[in-house]
Amino acid sequence: MAIIVNNRNFEEKTEQGERIGTDVDAGALANLFMDLGFEVTRYDNLSTMEMMSVMRQAAQEDHSDADCFACAFLSHGIEGRIYGTNGLISIDLLLSFFKGDKCLSLAGKPKLFFIQACRGKKNDEGVDIPLDETDSATEPKVRRIPTEADYMVAYSVAPGYYSWRNSVDGSWFVQGLVQVLKEFHQEMELLQMMTLVNKVVAEEFASDTGYEYNSGMKQIPTIVSRLTKFVYFRPKYLDYS
Amino acid sequence: MAIIVNNRNFEEKTEQGERIGTDVDAGALANLFMDLGFEVTRYDNLSTMEMMSVMRQAAQEDHSDADCFACAFLSHGIEGRIYGTNGLISIDLLLSFFKGDKCLSLAGKPKLFFIQACRGKKNDEGVDIPLDETDSATEPKVRRIPTEADYMVAYSVAPGYYSWRNSVDGSWFVQGLVQVLKEFHQEMELLQMMTLVNKVVAEEFASDTGYEYNSGMKQIPTIVSRLTKFVYFRPKYLDYS
Repeated sequence: MAIIVNNRNFEEKTEQGERIGTDVDAGALANLFMDLGFEVTRYDNLSTMEMMSVMRQAAQEDHSDADCFACAFLSHGIEGRIYGTNGLISIDLLLSFFKGDKCLSLAGKPKLFFIQACRGKKNDEGVDIPLDETDSATEPKVRRIPTEADYMVAYSVAPGYYSWRNSVDGSWFVQGLVQVLKEFHQEMELLQMMTLVNKVVAEEFASDTGYEYNSGMKQIPTIVSRLTKFVYFRPKYLDYS
Repeated sequence: MAIIVNNRNFEEKTEQGERIGTDVDAGALANLFMDLGFEVTRYDNLSTMEMMSVMRQAAQEDHSDADCFACAFLSHGIEGRIYGTNGLISIDLLLSFFKGDKCLSLAGKPKLFFIQACRGKKNDEGVDIPLDETDSATEPKVRRIPTEADYMVAYSVAPGYYSWRNSVDGSWFVQGLVQVLKEFHQEMELLQMMTLVNKVVAEEFASDTGYEYNSGMKQIPTIVSRLTKFVYFRPKYLDYS
């Protein structure tokens, strides 16, 4: 199961502007998740209470037949919190429903969260570096696992920073995410792909606002992993026909 | 260059007990880093000011010939902060000296931090689950990168939680880290190895204190990655003789 929470419009009291371009993100993500084999549900413009209840309900479903759970939040935000249409809610709280002791049918399985939202107002002016050359299981038996295990939370940006979104093409993070996962999901492990997402967002984007004070700005996503397994989507050697 | 800050004894005013077993961690890490090809410097029992100046000096050195920088902090801590012998200091502050715009000779290169310290007082009671079954790269040319890029910070535990250490064998996290990296560093990418470290710490350890209230507790590390490249140590196909 994959859930997309796509918040575009916000109540006036929140003083949060319309997130133009987010529907492009939501559409691209829905496509991607379907390609990866998820059943996708998309919600638009949820209040904080609705976000809570969507998460709670998703966690209460029976995931026994699933290998994995995925969820994307597209909204405004500040560090540690994200906007519903009517105000802020704690990201940790939204994610807590899926902890191993709360959601038993997902215990021991990867829980993947992708968060496109600001984490503050800082801009990353970047640093110029010279052009250079580039890059080039064990299975114990277990019964008890930590309740906090098996989460991956991919934030679009570093703590404290502004997260960029193009009104036509969507956010840099979702563009990079979709591009990399579409291209490499049949051969690469998830965290390796997320390193490539970091690379694409860091290298291929810079702001161009028409204003000197915030043009040329850069962005780097932040991947937080408590995964205990490699995550592969539909490896090539399996036959899906 | 790899730096190990090993804090075992603390001033009385801090009310922090001796970290028995940490010397085992420090020794094992020094060994590991040397195996991985780093020049290692170990510091014992640094004050907060000394930790600051060690980091500042390390960042000011010329790393032009290096591919990577590594650093381990072994100490007491709370969320976001770690103990010097005389009190607490911000982890972000210690790491900030290495940002791309502050430490140009490491800009664009992986900066790896391993933090063995508590992040709070919570214990993870774990959850019982049934026993069950169980690369390449793109190369755009670039000159400007985000200043926050290319960090990996591996925390021994999830935010808010207690981090376990055995008085004889050392901390669970460093034991798992050393075990996995020793075994797999010639074939696996760093983040893949860190997923295995998560697995080993999550599955192979549980507390046994002799007290019911905190025995059987579990722990899961938390890997935070803003890496933009795969990190390989001494791949097999290179000849080091």
